[in-house]
Amino acid sequence: MKLMEERVRRDGLIENGDVLKVGTFLNQTIDVPFICECAEEFYRLFGNEGVTKILTIEASGIGLACLTAVPFGVPVLFAKKSRSSNMAGGVYTAPVYSFTHGTQHEIMVPDTMLGPGDRVLLIDDFLAKGEALHGLLTLCEKAGASVVGAGIFIEKQYQGGGDEIRAMGIRVESLAKIKSMSVEDGVEFC
Amino acid sequence: MKLMEERVRRDGLIENGDVLKVGTFLNQTIDVPFICECAEEFYRLFGNEGVTKILTIEASGIGLACLTAVPFGVPVLFAKKSRSSNMAGGVYTAPVYSFTHGTQHEIMVPDTMLGPGDRVLLIDDFLAKGEALHGLLTLCEKAGASVVGAGIFIEKQYQGGGDEIRAMGIRVESLAKIKSMSVEDGVEFC
Repeated sequence: MKLMEERVRRDGLIENGDVLKVGTFLNQTIDVPFICECAEEFYRLFGNEGVTKILTIEASGIGLACLTAVPFGVPVLFAKKSRSSNMAGGVYTAPVYSFTHGTQHEIMVPDTMLGPGDRVLLIDDFLAKGEALHGLLTLCEKAGASVVGAGIFIEKQYQGGGDEIRAMGIRVESLAKIKSMSVEDGVEFC
Repeated sequence: MKLMEERVRRDGLIENGDVLKVGTFLNQTIDVPFICECAEEFYRLFGNEGVTKILTIEASGIGLACLTAVPFGVPVLFAKKSRSSNMAGGVYTAPVYSFTHGTQHEIMVPDTMLGPGDRVLLIDDFLAKGEALHGLLTLCEKAGASVVGAGIFIEKQYQGGGDEIRAMGIRVESLAKIKSMSVEDGVEFC
């Protein structure tokens, strides 16, 4: 999607250590009208797949998933990174390692909120090594839910996570796929 | 808003310890078409206030704030509860005590993302003692941003936080205001 590539080029900030900051439009500050255009693109790609639910992971995925859900007219479920006092009862869990935060944690959803009747679209802001996406796939597998695919806003293709998941037979659609990135040379898209 | 009252009556789950669970439609699972109707109501209430930005707090507020921002056509900024490696530079901070989690933490936004030019609508899922809202007001004050008001999905009026903030001259609009609540007698609205 040209629109996302242009936006990353214009407003993305590359820092050492393979960091791409998009906090001015994608997370922290969310450019809602822009994300609504992205949502229309995901609807064009997955709109005829009979999606019943969008699944994402807190925190930065939630807003993007909710806006993506608008054209689909379906609910959003998000996996939590810790059990709060509001979440009693049975849960499905999966381990996820976060390279951004340098921590391993469990993600979880209540077992009443995801099941065999669901056709799930996974949504996340970034796909790099694919840890979060693997976690979400595990949750769906445990729940017996079908996964129609994953919609990613920005994929760091060179980190290999996306192609690894595609090789599993999962459809992964990314609005921008970064081939290489450096402070010196900027971003190159696939 | 009758629609929200009916939904709380139908799907809200009251538990001992003053807990109202709305995880099946408001947080964790977010009923996006329903929240879009709530967003239209907030737009009816605040649509002519020249809102430039919607501010909320992670995590459960983010999806609701993003969907509310759609009719306003403005960006969402959310305050984080911890500093991530993605957030360098100056920040505005405010202390918030969470009764849900029994912890005190700082919330923060980057100082480049909120400023004197902003007319801010605060959005949050719950208003009880008002701790989160006070924190968001402090962030706006530090940034020199104007607050046009707060849009709340469910207010526990009997806990007093909302009226305390109204007494400060801040406009607070709640889609459902709970007068009293108990496992035995259910929910009574104002």
